Amino acid sequence: MLTYHFENIDGPIYLYLYQCIKDDIMSGALKPGEKLPSKRTFAKNNGISVITIQNAYDQLVSEGYVYTVPKKGYYVAKLEGLTKKTALDDVKYDIQLPKKKEYRYDFTSNGILADNFPFTTWTKISREVMSNEKENLMIPSPVSGVRKLREAIAEHLKSFRGIEVDPDQIIIGAGTEYLYGLIIELLGKDKVYTIENPGYRKLVQIYQQREIQCQYAAMDDEGVTIEELNRSHTEVAHICPNHHFPTGITMPARRRYEILAWAKEQEGRYIVEDDYDSEFRMEGKPLPTLYYIDTAGKVIYINTFSKSLTPTIRVSYMVLPVKLAALFFQKLSFYSCTVSNFEQYTLAEFISRGFFEKHINRMRLYYSKRRKKIVEVIESSAWGKRCEIIENDAGLHFLIKVDTELSDQEAEAKLEKRGIKMKT
Amino acid sequence: MLTYHFENIDGPIYLYLYQCIKDDIMSGALKPGEKLPSKRTFAKNNGISVITIQNAYDQLVSEGYVYTVPKKGYYVAKLEGLTKKTALDDVKYDIQLPKKKEYRYDFTSNGILADNFPFTTWTKISREVMSNEKENLMIPSPVSGVRKLREAIAEHLKSFRGIEVDPDQIIIGAGTEYLYGLIIELLGKDKVYTIENPGYRKLVQIYQQREIQCQYAAMDDEGVTIEELNRSHTEVAHICPNHHFPTGITMPARRRYEILAWAKEQEGRYIVEDDYDSEFRMEGKPLPTLYYIDTAGKVIYINTFSKSLTPTIRVSYMVLPVKLAALFFQKLSFYSCTVSNFEQYTLAEFISRGFFEKHINRMRLYYSKRRKKIVEVIESSAWGKRCEIIENDAGLHFLIKVDTELSDQEAEAKLEKRGIKMKT
Repeated sequence: MLTYHFENIDGPIYLYLYQCIKDDIMSGALKPGEKLPSKRTFAKNNGISVITIQNAYDQLVSEGYVYTVPKKGYYVAKLEGLTKKTALDDVKYDIQLPKKKEYRYDFTSNGILADNFPFTTWTKISREVMSNEKENLMIPSPVSGVRKLREAIAEHLKSFRGIEVDPDQIIIGAGTEYLYGLIIELLGKDKVYTIENPGYRKLVQIYQQREIQCQYAAMDDEGVTIEELNRSHTEVAHICPNHHFPTGITMPARRRYEILAWAKEQEGRYIVEDDYDSEFRMEGKPLPTLYYIDTAGKVIYINTFSKSLTPTIRVSYMVLPVKLAALFFQKLSFYSCTVSNFEQYTLAEFISRGFFEKHINRMRLYYSKRRKKIVEVIESSAWGKRCEIIENDAGLHFLIKVDTELSDQEAEAKLEKRGIKMKT
Repeated sequence: MLTYHFENIDGPIYLYLYQCIKDDIMSGALKPGEKLPSKRTFAKNNGISVITIQNAYDQLVSEGYVYTVPKKGYYVAKLEGLTKKTALDDVKYDIQLPKKKEYRYDFTSNGILADNFPFTTWTKISREVMSNEKENLMIPSPVSGVRKLREAIAEHLKSFRGIEVDPDQIIIGAGTEYLYGLIIELLGKDKVYTIENPGYRKLVQIYQQREIQCQYAAMDDEGVTIEELNRSHTEVAHICPNHHFPTGITMPARRRYEILAWAKEQEGRYIVEDDYDSEFRMEGKPLPTLYYIDTAGKVIYINTFSKSLTPTIRVSYMVLPVKLAALFFQKLSFYSCTVSNFEQYTLAEFISRGFFEKHINRMRLYYSKRRKKIVEVIESSAWGKRCEIIENDAGLHFLIKVDTELSDQEAEAKLEKRGIKMKT
């Protein structure tokens, strides 16, 4: 006979009763096949109404803990593999989280200082957006992103890079990595993708993770060579012609035209032009992008707000040639855009009202000064004479070639001990 | 002989000269191999300094438009495939954008009304976050997302779903679709994935797009059956046991235990439990999740803020069993989290200060009333007797079975004509 206490119950009695019986089933106090007391008897014995019992039984039946045999009554169901959940504490824990360590000097390239983010303007605009764009903020954006932001980016590209594009050629995504994935889905997994050697390490991991055939192409001092692209049977060349990472090489115009000619030679060949830090070329006039001089619809231009604003906002974009944009919407428009409307509208206003340009100018000056200072410190140090600084004039990073007997690993370990981080 | 006009120039003269010569090279006015005038002569003839010419020539050389022959001078380089960019207007445009149409009544499931988003609280919290969390907002979050948000979600899951998890088992991503992609990368592409039939159509597209072997499993009135999982050689079963879309079926406890037993039978079998609208089960007590009753680490629990807050914010999360979480960090920690820090911190505060729970309660009441109203209108209409409403008691949607001779397509077209949208 089931006995439960019905005093001081929070909430409906039927739910309490339901929970009690369920617990007894789960713990094994009530065995599979066992008959539950009839509603009438149970109600009478406990001084509660039949309808309350009925409700509890109904809930148990609807969830499958109990079954009914017409005209006979209610029975405990047989539940396969029935056991109580092991407490989490009993589980042997082995999640290896990425290690976090404090460094005195962190030279890795992923982050900006809080002082350098335009918090005042951003807060102001974001508040305005939440007050003025309520309706729009609730309308799911197409896979390519909010039109207002794509228009703002198109304007920016025109004035900043001389590229004229239709906002419908622009695809916005939560980070460049995410866009790489879309490019693979757009162009196909069976293609041979090639990245520069040396190059951006993360890219290799992304391609490997997706089981994509990914080759390396060696570079000379003008960037990747046509011989290398041919040797590796490349179909999609992923390159940073405007400021190669990490060497800092800027591909000269001649090589640009050669590579475009290579892409034109065969259908299905494409170039992904990664322009990740174009806003920060320190000196000289930047070269026209491959996208700009391409006449055959062979170049996918990709850029990010990670360097120019902050990596923690997760907004990147790519410009597809018209033909690929058409294919994109045909193939992939079922996806949702991965960037929040709230941030898309805020960023759109930030760009179109001129704040982005101001911010870039301020940051260019700031990084330029900082860079000079670091170079000065290195050159005037005891190690100065054994350091050669390579590609001093472009973008947010430079290489230091050190005259030392130490291996890379040894040097890194030594620096690490002194609280200097060189590598992610 | 090159002649340019040097009056009324904006900016440095060397840049202007550089641009003039480059334009002449691009247009063909200067031919490959042609010798440029010597710096001295050029300077004299135009009344500008030699150093200005030098700077312009240097820029052209550095970009590859011009090369030098020592002791002879500067020559126009041969550029492969050199042509001016076709104007965009000349390109035949064929981007087919997803169609947008205004409807009088939109019954598709993706969106909320602006009045139902907690704008006041959200704006307030987001302003506070931007003022108090400046430093944290700039620190890139691990692939799994900001810890503060994962802690808030863990608390929510505990009080709302009775699930106890470590925040390190939670992975945050920009939408459920994005998380599906991560699950595929985590478990492997070579596995057989199974979805319910009928089921969430977008899921099929995602699996197909990634060239994954994806099977359908038929359902009975308790959900997907073990026979079907075995017949289809399923390894990963993607199911919505708590409120199936679109049928609204809630899987009873017995079937839950059967499915867990199925998963336990073989290594490599997993269940993805999609709990997309659990916050809005209208009546009765929700069943314990598969994740809760699983004792073998076989269930990946996945949920989203799309239904409970807004789909335009793009935040979803999944809970991995401890063993899979360990594998996840080992395999995929190189990725960046796809959700902006700004939104992660705002949402964390929104949940942990109790606003999320209040919002859910308010919305549950609102949707419940709305649902009742719609059902009333349908039942009291001329069509009422020919409509059967199925699964009236759970979640944000229900099915209407209509007694009609019309095919689905015909019915949809008729409704569409009257401004009623039933399908995305």
